[in-house]
Order: sequence, then C-alpha cells, then structure tokens
Amino acid sequence: MQTSSTELDVYADDMRVGDAWNLGSYQVTEEEIIAFATHWDPQFFHVDPERAATEGYFGGVIASGVQTLAIYQRLSVTSRIGRWHVIAGAGIQPLRFRRPARPGDTLTGRTVVEEVRFEPDRNRAFVTYAGELVNQDDERALTLTMSAYLKSRPS
Amino acid sequence: MQTSSTELDVYADDMRVGDAWNLGSYQVTEEEIIAFATHWDPQFFHVDPERAATEGYFGGVIASGVQTLAIYQRLSVTSRIGRWHVIAGAGIQPLRFRRPARPGDTLTGRTVVEEVRFEPDRNRAFVTYAGELVNQDDERALTLTMSAYLKSRPS
Repeated sequence: MQTSSTELDVYADDMRVGDAWNLGSYQVTEEEIIAFATHWDPQFFHVDPERAATEGYFGGVIASGVQTLAIYQRLSVTSRIGRWHVIAGAGIQPLRFRRPARPGDTLTGRTVVEEVRFEPDRNRAFVTYAGELVNQDDERALTLTMSAYLKSRPS
Repeated sequence: MQTSSTELDVYADDMRVGDAWNLGSYQVTEEEIIAFATHWDPQFFHVDPERAATEGYFGGVIASGVQTLAIYQRLSVTSRIGRWHVIAGAGIQPLRFRRPARPGDTLTGRTVVEEVRFEPDRNRAFVTYAGELVNQDDERALTLTMSAYLKSRPS
C-alpha cells in the first residue's frame, strides 16, 4: 500500500509492515558540507578541501555522517513524516555510513515499515522503519533502522 | 589513562579499552533548535513553539534528535577527536533518544573506549566508543555506541 500523498491524517494504524516509500532526492554541495561541519563536525576531511585532498582518504571533502543522517531525516519529514502523527523519535539501531557523500552527489531516500508494535494503554505504537540513501550511481551511502512513537487513531 | 590534551598525534595504538573522557558542555537554545530543524527536521514539535505547546507532548519545542547527535559530535570533535588520526566514521549502533533536549538545557558529553580491533594489513583499527549526553539535572538525553576507523601509528 502507498499512503496517498493527499492523506493528512496518518496514524500508527495506517502503517503496514512492508509499506515502502520513495522520499525524493537531495543534492550535496561542497559549500553545505563545509558549512555544516564547521559547526557540528570540524574534522579536516569535512571542512578543509586542500588538506582533505592531500592527507584525507577520499581525495577531497566528504559530508559529515551527521549531515548524511540529517539529509535522510529532511527527505523523510518533507515527503512523508511531516503529515504523520508522530510523538517523538525513539532511536536508531543500527546506522551505517557505507560510502561517503561527496560534493555533487545526489542522494535519494527510501524507507520501508519493518514493525508496528501497539501500546493500547498509551494510545500509541512503536514503529520501526528501515531506511537508506543511495547516490546517483545506485550505491548505498547510508542505511539505518529508525524507531518512533506514533499516535493511534482516536476511537 | 587520560590522553593529554596537548598530545596531538593520537593513533589507534593509543586507545585503551576503558579510557574515558569528558567532552565538555553545550547549551541548547530555542533559536538554534528552530533554525536547525527548519532545514533538517521540520516537524511541528521542533519548529513551531505555539503548536508544540498546545498539541505536542513536551510542552514546547524539543531539539531534533539529529541535532542532539550533532551536539554530541561537536563536543567530541572539538574536545578530542579533532586531534586524532581518524580515517572515517563507520556507524552507530545503537543510538537512543532517552529524553528530549529543550531550550535552555545544558548537555554535557562523556565517552568511553569499548573496543579496539586492529586490522594490521590495512594499517588501521576499528574503534568503538560508548557515548552519552546528560543534561543539567544529570538525566541522560542521548546514549550511543559509535565506531570509526583510526590509523595505526606508522612504524
């Protein structure tokens, strides 16, 4: 099942194990890699193109792993989750940085519902999603399993 | 062992299981919560103080989990890792958002070396750290286990 993109009232009850969605794409720029990492993750291979090219392992700057996760979250929220009755995120287990995201890369997201565990006494469910970002060469940059609490549909 | 803060050349060989460090503190502001989430995680309970106060579960905006992780990473890099011979991050497993980070909270980081697995043929080691952020009331906001590749000391 694909939840219709015009459907605004999405509760835990609407999640089915195996439901899968494309989250859209995001283009990574060197400017944004450096700006993000300068504040949040100032390692030289994220913020210093010259030193990254000579001393780094990747021939230039790569995005902070935290930024790569942030891109996944942005795609996820703007395409879908923003319309869901989310209470809060619970955690991530596991998250893997499989391949660096580089300037010019286009990352495309996808997510699948893995588990829906209702907690009827609290009118909510613990929902687990498997997500990924793949680059323009169809190589996986990021894979993760993320859990969140969603409201149950009011009866 | 505490690695001296003046020691600049820290390789995988310098990591010992059980080594623990304080990473310093970071103050969370409502302005930054909203700015971060507006781009990366635009759910109403991160970006809309009024709606968060009436419809949210936390009486106001809370920081995006991605921002909470970014705060941990910033503390980690600026206090320690920035001086280490890191090749790249590998992944996180697990990460738990145990308690929301709110405007005005002061988050203090701590990390412990959990495992050092050398890969001599590649002159590197896979190093695993257990990290946490606690707030001003000594409540844990974030716990995570993070892995990275570090260079071995050149022989």
